[in-house]
Amino acid sequence: MSQGAAGGSRAVARCDLLARPPYSSAADMLFRAYLTPAHAAALETIAVWMREAGMTVHIDAAANLIGRYDGIDPAAPALLIGSHVDSVRDGGAYDGPLGVMLGIEAVAALAAAGRRLPFAIEVIAFGDEEGSRFPAAMLTSRAVAGTLERMPFDMADADGVTLGAALGLFSLRGHGGMRGAARPAGSTIAYLEAHIEQGPVLEAEGRAVGTVTGIAAQHRYQVVVEGLAGHAGTASMPLRRDALAAAAEMVLAVERVARAAASDLVATVGKLEVAPGAPNVIPGRVAFTIDVRAGEADRRDAAAAAILGDIRAIADRRGVELTSTLIHDLPAAPSDPMLMDLLDEATEAAGQPVRRLVSGAGHDAMIMASLCPTVMLFLRCAGGISHNPAERVDPADAEIVLAVMLGFIDRLGERFA
Amino acid sequence: MSQGAAGGSRAVARCDLLARPPYSSAADMLFRAYLTPAHAAALETIAVWMREAGMTVHIDAAANLIGRYDGIDPAAPALLIGSHVDSVRDGGAYDGPLGVMLGIEAVAALAAAGRRLPFAIEVIAFGDEEGSRFPAAMLTSRAVAGTLERMPFDMADADGVTLGAALGLFSLRGHGGMRGAARPAGSTIAYLEAHIEQGPVLEAEGRAVGTVTGIAAQHRYQVVVEGLAGHAGTASMPLRRDALAAAAEMVLAVERVARAAASDLVATVGKLEVAPGAPNVIPGRVAFTIDVRAGEADRRDAAAAAILGDIRAIADRRGVELTSTLIHDLPAAPSDPMLMDLLDEATEAAGQPVRRLVSGAGHDAMIMASLCPTVMLFLRCAGGISHNPAERVDPADAEIVLAVMLGFIDRLGERFA
Repeated sequence: MSQGAAGGSRAVARCDLLARPPYSSAADMLFRAYLTPAHAAALETIAVWMREAGMTVHIDAAANLIGRYDGIDPAAPALLIGSHVDSVRDGGAYDGPLGVMLGIEAVAALAAAGRRLPFAIEVIAFGDEEGSRFPAAMLTSRAVAGTLERMPFDMADADGVTLGAALGLFSLRGHGGMRGAARPAGSTIAYLEAHIEQGPVLEAEGRAVGTVTGIAAQHRYQVVVEGLAGHAGTASMPLRRDALAAAAEMVLAVERVARAAASDLVATVGKLEVAPGAPNVIPGRVAFTIDVRAGEADRRDAAAAAILGDIRAIADRRGVELTSTLIHDLPAAPSDPMLMDLLDEATEAAGQPVRRLVSGAGHDAMIMASLCPTVMLFLRCAGGISHNPAERVDPADAEIVLAVMLGFIDRLGERFA
Repeated sequence: MSQGAAGGSRAVARCDLLARPPYSSAADMLFRAYLTPAHAAALETIAVWMREAGMTVHIDAAANLIGRYDGIDPAAPALLIGSHVDSVRDGGAYDGPLGVMLGIEAVAALAAAGRRLPFAIEVIAFGDEEGSRFPAAMLTSRAVAGTLERMPFDMADADGVTLGAALGLFSLRGHGGMRGAARPAGSTIAYLEAHIEQGPVLEAEGRAVGTVTGIAAQHRYQVVVEGLAGHAGTASMPLRRDALAAAAEMVLAVERVARAAASDLVATVGKLEVAPGAPNVIPGRVAFTIDVRAGEADRRDAAAAAILGDIRAIADRRGVELTSTLIHDLPAAPSDPMLMDLLDEATEAAGQPVRRLVSGAGHDAMIMASLCPTVMLFLRCAGGISHNPAERVDPADAEIVLAVMLGFIDRLGERFA
């Protein structure tokens, strides 16, 4: 582990550097969107760091930067380690880049020790995960996984620049080119992604690191409650059919079902709109969303069914109309069991307690799961805060994560030997 | 009573006529705002109807139209009967004008019978009750009651036309003139206003008419709940401080307190806004209003105190911040007990069951209460619907109301004889 002792801190410091111009489009905040000059500047600098770590570097047809550290056999397939280098507007420094920087540090440690594995290691910096420029997310891991069914080159950003034109300006072959980023079958043995948790669980439990069991299965519903609008002063209480009072009961039913699960299951009403929305008018219509996630689809489905049953009963009892529409249905992307075991062993070897947790948020790993076995490692972040300039990680935690990653690589190497 | 047998229907038909151009500013809906050409056209026509009914007519300094039917002694003070002739945008035909038309019919019936009372009867058509043009309501009854403390001539409408300029264009003396509408002390013995209920109570109970015990005392609060925003996928349920879940409990507490009163007390959360308001973000902040009304201030105050206590306990239990601000505090305007008794007697004499109910909505009567004893008569309206083109009244109900008004005038005359 001693090889990596300074690497974690360096990885964090490099993320800090990348949070400022020219790697951000703005001086007063971090914003690095796909195929922008800030993105290009970041790739140039990251390429330097990859070469310093002992890798050969290329940019693929989707503008992903890939550094390769050959295995004992130069033709061996690769363990892919990566994350994304784009950010949301006014984002944090570590969401994405830290996973890339830690991959580079892992290779640097191996190279410094002169070690080669039975497989190559490729570090990949995905260009678009957040979807903060074009109206789609995870475009670049989709390109790598070969799941971009229809090339979305005519999608335009807020300025009317199409994805095709942006790829061309990035000196990449435009139309048809993105498909060239797809990795051939058999060239990738696994995908490892280290990422900040973006949630409060590890910090609340005093742990630095956790093994991610998978990306949660997600259902999202749009619900509309129709009652009867009326004058807040003249409609007596027994005669009311108040859409907001009904919706309030439903919000609490959503919370109750999720709490009762006492698991990784979460359910959220994040958006709720009241019409007509005047202080002296009884609400006639309320529209809200329900987002339900769990590590496995069957538990998610059971919770969603319980919620829908409860809110239907509330609507019937209150005499309001209810419509609910499933607007998102994302399957679970479970981590590979063997890879999780290796991460757990490496965690123990690094002197850390083992903690497995589900990722409620989506990550490139869920796309890569269609290409190869995947696993993720979560890193504690301050207050669970992310997508925010207040995003913080402790460099000491980054050292631990790097040690776990190196232990994982060692163990995977033993399996392949 | 037979004098009024057709008057109720004619009053309803005249309201229907006034709902169309030139008495509405728009051809496809009713909109008649204060000091507009539509308002002027309505006053010209109503003046004709007043003269036909046997009244002398003038317009006061606030653009209220007043028809006078002298008493036995031409210098006698007046029973004032009235309501307003302005409307909300896309309003209904009867909210306001029906009370004026029924006043005219009552005088027409007396004149047809050659009857004079110990007091004069003045029918007043107030110009502004709804406040749909300038940012203030009940301007014209305030002018009549002499409670317009500061003349608001510099208030502008949406087009930048000031109240002072609008009064000038209406051929009224502008600055200072509105104050001239104030009635001298002793010139008015009582104020009677017939108005559609704008609520569902009379219809639900199968009654045509009700005696209004007063205008409810009203409290309005602005409440802000601050929790902690977070990612809907990554923040586990036990660690959340969801501002919307807390607010939902509070909405139900408001409803529970009002229902438990089992009286005329009503409490409403009509406006509720969620921030940041994205489907995948746990709400961090919710702002909402609470409107509490009851026939007497002490019951309103007790309910408001119970609500504020309950929502404070909810906030404390959930670990969210709560601030509440009293933004409206309107005292109750009780009807005069003797006048209510006379209305009840007239109701019984008209063969109708007596029903007393509070007005949750504000009316000119609550302003006039500072000038003289007041009482209101509510008329059943279809579905309790008002401020809407679907506003409807049954002409047969209008006949009943007219009979009750005439019975009331008779009985008041006996008191004054």
